[in-house]
Amino acid sequence: MTANRAVTYQGPMKVMVENIDYPTFELRDGPGVNPANVGRKVPHGAILKVVTTNICGSDQHMVRGRTTAPEGLVLGHEITGEVVEVGPGVEFVKVGDLCSVPFNIACGRCKNCKEGKTGICLNVNPDRPGSAYGYVDMGGWVGGQADYVLVPYADWNLLVFPDKDQAMEKITDLTMLSDIFPTGFHGAYTAGTKTGSTVYVAGAGPVGLAAAVSAQLLGASAVLVADLNQDRLEQARRIGCETVDVSKGDPRDQIEQILGVPEVDCGVDAVGFEAHGHGKDSGTEAPATVLNSLMEVTAAGGALGIPGLYVTGDPGAGDEAAKIGSLSIRLGLGWAKSHSFTTGQCPVMKYHRGLMNAILADKVHIGDAVNATVIGLDDAPRGYADFDSGVAKKFVLDPHNSTGRVKAA
Amino acid sequence: MTANRAVTYQGPMKVMVENIDYPTFELRDGPGVNPANVGRKVPHGAILKVVTTNICGSDQHMVRGRTTAPEGLVLGHEITGEVVEVGPGVEFVKVGDLCSVPFNIACGRCKNCKEGKTGICLNVNPDRPGSAYGYVDMGGWVGGQADYVLVPYADWNLLVFPDKDQAMEKITDLTMLSDIFPTGFHGAYTAGTKTGSTVYVAGAGPVGLAAAVSAQLLGASAVLVADLNQDRLEQARRIGCETVDVSKGDPRDQIEQILGVPEVDCGVDAVGFEAHGHGKDSGTEAPATVLNSLMEVTAAGGALGIPGLYVTGDPGAGDEAAKIGSLSIRLGLGWAKSHSFTTGQCPVMKYHRGLMNAILADKVHIGDAVNATVIGLDDAPRGYADFDSGVAKKFVLDPHNSTGRVKAA
Amino acid sequence: MTANRAVTYQGPMKVMVENIDYPTFELRDGPGVNPANVGRKVPHGAILKVVTTNICGSDQHMVRGRTTAPEGLVLGHEITGEVVEVGPGVEFVKVGDLCSVPFNIACGRCKNCKEGKTGICLNVNPDRPGSAYGYVDMGGWVGGQADYVLVPYADWNLLVFPDKDQAMEKITDLTMLSDIFPTGFHGAYTAGTKTGSTVYVAGAGPVGLAAAVSAQLLGASAVLVADLNQDRLEQARRIGCETVDVSKGDPRDQIEQILGVPEVDCGVDAVGFEAHGHGKDSGTEAPATVLNSLMEVTAAGGALGIPGLYVTGDPGAGDEAAKIGSLSIRLGLGWAKSHSFTTGQCPVMKYHRGLMNAILADKVHIGDAVNATVIGLDDAPRGYADFDSGVAKKFVLDPHNSTGRVKAA
Amino acid sequence: MTANRAVTYQGPMKVMVENIDYPTFELRDGPGVNPANVGRKVPHGAILKVVTTNICGSDQHMVRGRTTAPEGLVLGHEITGEVVEVGPGVEFVKVGDLCSVPFNIACGRCKNCKEGKTGICLNVNPDRPGSAYGYVDMGGWVGGQADYVLVPYADWNLLVFPDKDQAMEKITDLTMLSDIFPTGFHGAYTAGTKTGSTVYVAGAGPVGLAAAVSAQLLGASAVLVADLNQDRLEQARRIGCETVDVSKGDPRDQIEQILGVPEVDCGVDAVGFEAHGHGKDSGTEAPATVLNSLMEVTAAGGALGIPGLYVTGDPGAGDEAAKIGSLSIRLGLGWAKSHSFTTGQCPVMKYHRGLMNAILADKVHIGDAVNATVIGLDDAPRGYADFDSGVAKKFVLDPHNSTGRVKAA
Repeated sequence: MTANRAVTYQGPMKVMVENIDYPTFELRDGPGVNPANVGRKVPHGAILKVVTTNICGSDQHMVRGRTTAPEGLVLGHEITGEVVEVGPGVEFVKVGDLCSVPFNIACGRCKNCKEGKTGICLNVNPDRPGSAYGYVDMGGWVGGQADYVLVPYADWNLLVFPDKDQAMEKITDLTMLSDIFPTGFHGAYTAGTKTGSTVYVAGAGPVGLAAAVSAQLLGASAVLVADLNQDRLEQARRIGCETVDVSKGDPRDQIEQILGVPEVDCGVDAVGFEAHGHGKDSGTEAPATVLNSLMEVTAAGGALGIPGLYVTGDPGAGDEAAKIGSLSIRLGLGWAKSHSFTTGQCPVMKYHRGLMNAILADKVHIGDAVNATVIGLDDAPRGYADFDSGVAKKFVLDPHNSTGRVKAA
Repeated sequence: MTANRAVTYQGPMKVMVENIDYPTFELRDGPGVNPANVGRKVPHGAILKVVTTNICGSDQHMVRGRTTAPEGLVLGHEITGEVVEVGPGVEFVKVGDLCSVPFNIACGRCKNCKEGKTGICLNVNPDRPGSAYGYVDMGGWVGGQADYVLVPYADWNLLVFPDKDQAMEKITDLTMLSDIFPTGFHGAYTAGTKTGSTVYVAGAGPVGLAAAVSAQLLGASAVLVADLNQDRLEQARRIGCETVDVSKGDPRDQIEQILGVPEVDCGVDAVGFEAHGHGKDSGTEAPATVLNSLMEVTAAGGALGIPGLYVTGDPGAGDEAAKIGSLSIRLGLGWAKSHSFTTGQCPVMKYHRGLMNAILADKVHIGDAVNATVIGLDDAPRGYADFDSGVAKKFVLDPHNSTGRVKAA
Repeated sequence: MTANRAVTYQGPMKVMVENIDYPTFELRDGPGVNPANVGRKVPHGAILKVVTTNICGSDQHMVRGRTTAPEGLVLGHEITGEVVEVGPGVEFVKVGDLCSVPFNIACGRCKNCKEGKTGICLNVNPDRPGSAYGYVDMGGWVGGQADYVLVPYADWNLLVFPDKDQAMEKITDLTMLSDIFPTGFHGAYTAGTKTGSTVYVAGAGPVGLAAAVSAQLLGASAVLVADLNQDRLEQARRIGCETVDVSKGDPRDQIEQILGVPEVDCGVDAVGFEAHGHGKDSGTEAPATVLNSLMEVTAAGGALGIPGLYVTGDPGAGDEAAKIGSLSIRLGLGWAKSHSFTTGQCPVMKYHRGLMNAILADKVHIGDAVNATVIGLDDAPRGYADFDSGVAKKFVLDPHNSTGRVKAA
Repeated sequence: MTANRAVTYQGPMKVMVENIDYPTFELRDGPGVNPANVGRKVPHGAILKVVTTNICGSDQHMVRGRTTAPEGLVLGHEITGEVVEVGPGVEFVKVGDLCSVPFNIACGRCKNCKEGKTGICLNVNPDRPGSAYGYVDMGGWVGGQADYVLVPYADWNLLVFPDKDQAMEKITDLTMLSDIFPTGFHGAYTAGTKTGSTVYVAGAGPVGLAAAVSAQLLGASAVLVADLNQDRLEQARRIGCETVDVSKGDPRDQIEQILGVPEVDCGVDAVGFEAHGHGKDSGTEAPATVLNSLMEVTAAGGALGIPGLYVTGDPGAGDEAAKIGSLSIRLGLGWAKSHSFTTGQCPVMKYHRGLMNAILADKVHIGDAVNATVIGLDDAPRGYADFDSGVAKKFVLDPHNSTGRVKAA
């Protein structure tokens, strides 16, 4: 049996690399696997040799102990890989294909999938609509921060790159197609970004930067990125954005200095429930602060795209309401401005092909924008720690040094 | 000078009919008129003899003393009337035209109007986008629960009925075009109602019933209306809806009994911030209860239309957060289900012409659905009191007994 | 081996019922099977016992000899049936399920399917995008006017009815979900029909009537159906439509008498390339006449939905241009009116679930509207002949008398 | 009275500059003025000192004698100017404002304007929906290739630039907002261009180049521009497009060489009815050739944007059918591919503000892209002649040398 190293969660602030079973066309029991999924046959699956797999901000929620993720859970839902084996039910994907794997697992057969709503597939997670690899309460599909990973419903889920050599040249861009590029794009798109729009992106982490790049792709006339973290703000400026330092006074004043008016057309929440206060609330968590601020800075008639994760339960929250996912939101303000709001997982499949084409045609350089930093699988623990410290980097694990770009974290 | 009676607010739970000035083509000072609007010239206006003008649930917010409405404010934003005079800047509307007046006042010249967003016109309310007749903080345009009223930007705002005699026959339907029919329709439409959808409407008041009728018009396979008020639930059943009595246990259970599944495709909030709790919270206000309940009953991927009013400030609220319009919302639940939300005033102009055509072609009978009850202008105080008591009626004031249907309240 | 009778094409104006092979999970050679599809494995398929299968106007194009359909071709693409066997790759559809089969065969795995464009699936027809059962140049999938039929990609294609008994009660409605109801709906929908619209449907055959019913479902204030055939016009009036007899003068004049204006908001072409002239051109084919007429009667800004079939080659056409599918279209007229046009096969999957729900909730009675007439499979030749004569009936073949309603044609 | 020079049509291939009356707030009789518009009061109008006014390809249709334009008609519908006087009904536009004038004249009060369909306004052209300055059969509004011009419904129609000095620096870009930039954008947009799309633009004249630039702004991964004219193809390459020389063989082969597949996602017709054949039909007019070619090169499921002008009557056409605007179109081909088609005048107001913002933010340089060439008003005849010869230039007339860039043609 081929060896298969994987990054696993081992309790708050602890991840390690250990050997796990090589995948087969069946979902076997293991940490976090939903009992109703144990033994599930996956003849429609493909086994991929992982080429790149990124550390995501939403992995950090688990690693910080903010969820009920069990010890031993194999992490990783941002996966790009080469098909090394296909199940008997796979017809179009071929061994040797280099593919992007959408982080949302979808069956391609249910009502929601048929409508393109692959983020809320009805058939992959026994608990509720929607699933992902290596994530708590998502059905138990084994994570992809590993040497090899099983992708179910391979003909439906996989996006095959048209040319392998060309793809390997742009692999630090293409690796972002599994999650953050479409997720950021979804944020900018559902915020209503159009040619000439002004867009405010709350959060300068990788998803925020991806939203900013997406807003540029969509033709925004100005993209303003807000954060507290100086390195991340600097990275935003590097890619042509204006920045708002939320620790330095009212965002509306800063917006007015930049645009001449104190508001924008479109708002994106790329932070989610782990938002922190600033000013007098500096340092404490303030889970509703981003949304309330976005309603203040977005003009009447505007839309808010909310790719940032909000959870139904947050055991680590500071107050009782937030523990059950209740936030104190100034809805009246949004109502008075006729705002609309789009929440939820990005349905990656809706966007990834177009974004791939934009990457391959050199229209966008998302890897540079988020400061993609390739490291080895064994360096994953260091990657997690560095990312948690707030460095302006997006860590890309390359288990087999397929890219030839592995460097120390 | 022609006499002009009008319904005015005189303090909590007090309205009276008094004589006010006959309109001219200028906005003069008076209770609630924004200083920046005093003296504003209105050559583009038309003076209407009011044929019908309805009492609205949002008038009640003021009458209950839940706002900062000043004494003497002339009420009324649901207006249908006949043009008796036009200003020099009016080109297409003619004296004698019988018209519906959208409750949102719009200039027809600003960026938002050009995009059809007439609920957030930039030029009519000096305080913020959006305006209405006879409403607190909406610029001070004089209300239409009166014998005569001034309609600014008449060529833009007025919807002329094609045939006066035909229109008078359907006047109790057509009078709903000024607000509640489009508002209910906006709720059902932005909730994503399509052919075959199942729709849950929270609230069986006039807007809720209008949303229910609209959902039927849009082809819903089932419309479920929820309320605590037995008369209103009975009215909902009379028009072919299923009903959920929220005082009788979990709505999800009741939905399951009706539909076989515990959830619906689309959710409409026709209640707003004055929602009341039920069950153990019975009787107390619970401003977030409707939204939180809608997120529970609406399936993943669904949309929530929120025509129910939420305010930026509510001096009469039970807790400090609600006083500034902050509500404790289970956003995490909505996020997990990829819900989207549409808030704000209905842009009446987007819908009123199509709905007028449906009424005139006998495809819908909105007057019956909301139990339109015509009374005289002098009976307005009684109408307000009865409506406040929760009767399943929509009061239509007919100042001149133009309809010949005036009856005691 | 179970016997399997089927309706086959045997040359112009000749169809017969003959025994064919019982389906297996492989597409075997036979009349009309594309060589590249011969031997294709179908482990994802389901074998259905056909409950109902309708004769379609597009079958008639073949039967009239207007195509290159080979003798022996098994006809039938409007199929409803019960699953009697599933291939090893089928996961969700179960033996015993009663299902509607969309006439367009789709893989559920290609780019177009992922976008919901199931009418132009890239993987089922080696010649070009798009496929159907029992149709010339569509890949060679065996037709369903038979006792049994194979449905490939069953988990993707089949729409399972939630309750078999309930479904059998409404089977003459539900049988229209495989093609004409969604096709007519697609026409009305892409013509922009909304609440209050006026809609002109050219053609009072089954698709035209389905478009008319759909326009009503979509909230049209008036639906006008145009034809030459008196029986069909009478059927249109029976379901609440206005009618235009194109043999009796200019449609614009007739529209004006009905609506007061000589034009409509939305136009639907439910005729296609076999249109006939009227007035001085009576009796001769005039393939562009419907489209040109629709541009005349549709108001500026309107849209034309074109579900009626236009072909790339028509060997039987009256002139050289039409033989290669070229028609003399007054495009300048449409351009001056800013018309838009939507053509092509209806992507059934986009609409069939919502329409099923509307049928099951008794919101629409499509079977009555098109005058569904159930006959036995052996009566198919008579059904074809009667339909060709222009009777206002939609023939539904019931091979096993599952409905208990088989009667003589 | 201030002098007012204007460019007038004087018969086939003849334009001259002559003095005309200075505008007043009334539409007086003159060449091409619709009798029903003579004497029309325009209190809602503004008089503009023309800063720039461009020669358009659609002006050439008239100048070539292909229309019924009368001698003396004042030309010019692409206008940018400074407000020097406003009528009594103007409320928001101020003297001194520098503005772009949409070529379509719209009232801002009719049903179509309220829906944003300003290209088919119902109140400005007595003959039919839709109007423009200085154009045959468009109501008779005086053209703007002049020192001064009257703009009716100024508050509705004019787009005011936020900063005059900034605007004058980018005036050769901003002058394209009156027509060709939105028109090209409309083509690319209605062709369905999205992030990653491949787009084929037929025609490398100014509208074609504007469509190409727009496709780039919309995120296209590849833009292919097709023409016969070598200078224009060279200009297309200069702005980063691929090119197809239709005189050099089948466009599908050339597309395949560029993209690896012989088709594109989106097709734009920037040519219209004066298309010329190529290959064996070289030199002769072939009015349907562009549309038929677009259906060949556009993939199934694609859309065709058709901003190129098609006319209802073309007295100069080569055959009888084309004289009444009938073209021999391979509709069957489009139908088989489920194509959709959008025709008509671009509703400029839908796009001009966003495009202005993109220009002011330096996101696009449309003036360079179309090779804007500023000349004096008196040089207009030479500009027309040069443009007719096929030079790759867009001529911008600057009557007062406001730009300081006037140079010889």
